[in-house]
Amino acid sequence: MRPIGRTRWACSGGPIPVSGSGPEPPFTPHDRLGLLNAGDEVAHVRITLHYVDGGPVGPYPISVAPRRVRQLRLNDLIDPVAMPLEAAYAAVIASDVPIVVQLTRQDTRRRTLALTGTVAFAGDE
Amino acid sequence: MRPIGRTRWACSGGPIPVSGSGPEPPFTPHDRLGLLNAGDEVAHVRITLHYVDGGPVGPYPISVAPRRVRQLRLNDLIDPVAMPLEAAYAAVIASDVPIVVQLTRQDTRRRTLALTGTVAFAGDE
Amino acid sequence: MRPIGRTRWACSGGPIPVSGSGPEPPFTPHDRLGLLNAGDEVAHVRITLHYVDGGPVGPYPISVAPRRVRQLRLNDLIDPVAMPLEAAYAAVIASDVPIVVQLTRQDTRRRTLALTGTVAFAGDE
Amino acid sequence: MRPIGRTRWACSGGPIPVSGSGPEPPFTPHDRLGLLNAGDEVAHVRITLHYVDGGPVGPYPISVAPRRVRQLRLNDLIDPVAMPLEAAYAAVIASDVPIVVQLTRQDTRRRTLALTGTVAFAGDE
Repeated sequence: MRPIGRTRWACSGGPIPVSGSGPEPPFTPHDRLGLLNAGDEVAHVRITLHYVDGGPVGPYPISVAPRRVRQLRLNDLIDPVAMPLEAAYAAVIASDVPIVVQLTRQDTRRRTLALTGTVAFAGDE
Repeated sequence: MRPIGRTRWACSGGPIPVSGSGPEPPFTPHDRLGLLNAGDEVAHVRITLHYVDGGPVGPYPISVAPRRVRQLRLNDLIDPVAMPLEAAYAAVIASDVPIVVQLTRQDTRRRTLALTGTVAFAGDE
Repeated sequence: MRPIGRTRWACSGGPIPVSGSGPEPPFTPHDRLGLLNAGDEVAHVRITLHYVDGGPVGPYPISVAPRRVRQLRLNDLIDPVAMPLEAAYAAVIASDVPIVVQLTRQDTRRRTLALTGTVAFAGDE
Repeated sequence: MRPIGRTRWACSGGPIPVSGSGPEPPFTPHDRLGLLNAGDEVAHVRITLHYVDGGPVGPYPISVAPRRVRQLRLNDLIDPVAMPLEAAYAAVIASDVPIVVQLTRQDTRRRTLALTGTVAFAGDE
């Protein structure tokens, strides 16, 4: 049976705040992608970031080992270009094998914690 | 390959609070749509708002440039009619090319920050 | 074109807290469904509630006028049976015409506001 | 008519915090799955957990009675192996009959409550 997932995903985040409250790194504001590769082959993933202004940036190459999870803080993407904070973005995620993508946002601008998240949009194949 | 997304979307928000706490605009309560156009052509988008009472309002025309993101605070929709606050609504989003739509709600009625959000419902084509 | 939506939906909520903090009703803990009927005919909706123990309860009949939204606090369902609080539940929503269903949960057990929500699961037809 | 749902689901959570604030168990940080079996037969469910390092763990066998809901705190999975906290994970949920799966996360590391959640990803069949 084909592993669960799809090969094309997208999500659309708001601007990631530059600074929050509380100890870092656990309370640093961030958007993160949870990437599941439930299959038996390495997933070669390419993330392209789209912005309000300027051309798309990327692809950022990421690999996810078979039967493994990878958590990726988008703030940590630096090659080819560090992701700008405070900029609205969307991510398009393409993989050579099926994966599952979920987005979580942590916002600590106030002295409390706000979370939101969603399974990303799974593109048709 | 066809760009990722669909041409018909919907989401159903609760009432957007009139007033919150904290500095504006960053902490103004709002619902916003993140619209991704990952394709090579301009997306001509039409948003129709439905309410508990009264006929649907719109369409509000919006365009999203190729390979770009647009963040739209629903509170900011004013033409043809300013969106009423404190009114439950739903948005139907139609585009001439595939897009991806994600909803984020920020609520600051209390002295903290609450967030929620979801990828919108992607209609069949 | 067929109106956007599906005729079968489901979501699975946790227990709704009995009591919260802050003025009622705006800060009463609740789960609510946003029901969008974007079509031209009345939607006759039947909600069935499933629990951890005991048989399913319902259906609760609800109608949504054409091109209208209805927000339904599940706490307010009383006929045929008032919904018990503090009980995990799931809702199955069936409609005779396509609708879109979104779930929002508000939790004020603490002196702040927590929100979460998601588009419900759209069943195959 | 076939009961609503699918037989393969996945979600990808971040690390579950070891400790939070407030009385336990209601305010213990946790990720929980809401499993709805709206059909007439027992659902035999097998949950496999994937991690950043190490092989997948499981399956954890769970059953859900007909027309019932089951809420499962992932923190409570102990057989065959207790789930490690503070470790990013993803869950693959397989059932012999259709079910609906929704994820809710509660985080109380700060003296407030943060919630997030989403319908899990429904795999193709």
